[in-house]
Amino acid sequence: MKVIKTIQGLRRELQALWQKGERIGFVPTMGYFHQGHVSLMARSVRENDITVVSLFVNPVQFGPTEDLSRYPRDLRRDCAMAKAAGVAVIFIPSVKEMYPQELSTWVSVNALSEGLCGASRPGHFKGVATVVAKLLNIVQPDTMYLGAKDAQQAMVIKKMVCDLNFPARVVVCPTVRERDGLAMSSRNMYLKPDERIAAKALSGALFAAKKDILSGERNALKIISKIKKLILEETGASIEYVSCVSATDLKPVRRIKADVLIALAVRFPSARLIDNQLVILR
Amino acid sequence: MKVIKTIQGLRRELQALWQKGERIGFVPTMGYFHQGHVSLMARSVRENDITVVSLFVNPVQFGPTEDLSRYPRDLRRDCAMAKAAGVAVIFIPSVKEMYPQELSTWVSVNALSEGLCGASRPGHFKGVATVVAKLLNIVQPDTMYLGAKDAQQAMVIKKMVCDLNFPARVVVCPTVRERDGLAMSSRNMYLKPDERIAAKALSGALFAAKKDILSGERNALKIISKIKKLILEETGASIEYVSCVSATDLKPVRRIKADVLIALAVRFPSARLIDNQLVILR
Repeated sequence: MKVIKTIQGLRRELQALWQKGERIGFVPTMGYFHQGHVSLMARSVRENDITVVSLFVNPVQFGPTEDLSRYPRDLRRDCAMAKAAGVAVIFIPSVKEMYPQELSTWVSVNALSEGLCGASRPGHFKGVATVVAKLLNIVQPDTMYLGAKDAQQAMVIKKMVCDLNFPARVVVCPTVRERDGLAMSSRNMYLKPDERIAAKALSGALFAAKKDILSGERNALKIISKIKKLILEETGASIEYVSCVSATDLKPVRRIKADVLIALAVRFPSARLIDNQLVILR
Repeated sequence: MKVIKTIQGLRRELQALWQKGERIGFVPTMGYFHQGHVSLMARSVRENDITVVSLFVNPVQFGPTEDLSRYPRDLRRDCAMAKAAGVAVIFIPSVKEMYPQELSTWVSVNALSEGLCGASRPGHFKGVATVVAKLLNIVQPDTMYLGAKDAQQAMVIKKMVCDLNFPARVVVCPTVRERDGLAMSSRNMYLKPDERIAAKALSGALFAAKKDILSGERNALKIISKIKKLILEETGASIEYVSCVSATDLKPVRRIKADVLIALAVRFPSARLIDNQLVILR
């Protein structure tokens, strides 16, 4: 596996592959890999001639009070995991490499970016869309792999790729979970032991909600209150949001008539966690 | 020359060229060609294996009171001119093809977009940057050719290409002028005969200002007043702006210490015209 730190170096490496028409799979990440990342890499390796992973903790998607400076990093372990997954190239640019001067070009995806996490993280999805646009132009992949845990992020990026005609396919892969159901996240490492145990309530409440909907419950407010109640009972966390939104436009739903995403963000004293369940009506 | 109307059709046409590593030159236009467009096409034809021209009157870069509905069109003449210039493919998508649904993704280039034409045409450069991002992703050219008459547009697009790492070079080609100095523009056809005659005052005033600066004048306000006076004396037009700005960041300059762009927009009763001169200090 090649470790490449510059845009020019990466382009030089990929030049021959673009021209040979090799299928390039791409997994954009912020590093500190877990099995969720590995599942994206493995799928890309299976489906492409070569897989490129980017590892870049993108400052412009963090708010001023967020965890940019303490975001966990372990390059050596990350490289070993990517290599074991069959990744051919890992691209690890510096902030200076990605943003050599003050950035004045921004990509924004309206509407989809506004609710859910967008409401409490203003500018977050603009930072995400912008860095992903840059990475797509740098890597020029055939297919990009994203995790379903960040459901809103995946939808924002899919919309950007479609609206701006990026010549890439976007594949969203299932959330990988710990044994007790907790969605894998690099931020789980922030959790204190008691928080970690309590955190299983998030997925537990979502699974129960999904079951309720599939059993016929159509009142979104009832679903939401039940989730909130379960989480408040089982954790000391504060709830940022629990929402039941249309799976197509992320707009809040009162009466469930079509596929919905139930999504939540919860603040533990040590970490903010998100999770979601897509409910496809049968 | 092939006339292609769909994105998929164009991609199918270009696929083999991308893979063979042929150099693709690209000239984005709104049609109604004049010798300025032809000079861009000719340069692209000289420097590349194949030249693609897009012809799309982009609605999202027009303000609600602007000339979108009456923007001049003559497809047959345009195709003949492009063919004669050696263009291989002309891409003429419909509005529905470029914007199949309401666009929610926008590319904005701050700072550079704000002054000059950006001040009186809010949203204009956002519309331009967004459609050019789409076209770059559709055509995937090696080099894109733009005209210097739209100096601010060229700078906004260059900045976008750089900031978002589009894998394309941008070449800005000199303004082509009528015999009396009027910068060629599709909008010149709006001018009544007397306006057309008076319109030569714009370039005349700009040439004189350039000469003054190169002869040692360093007071931008003096330069600006002299241009305004000349134009007001010789035309019945109202001046939207006459500005002397830094050639690198388009910020207004009072004392000329480095390269500047002198740019203006003037509203005749029948048409809004722009022109500029770049002054490189020796």
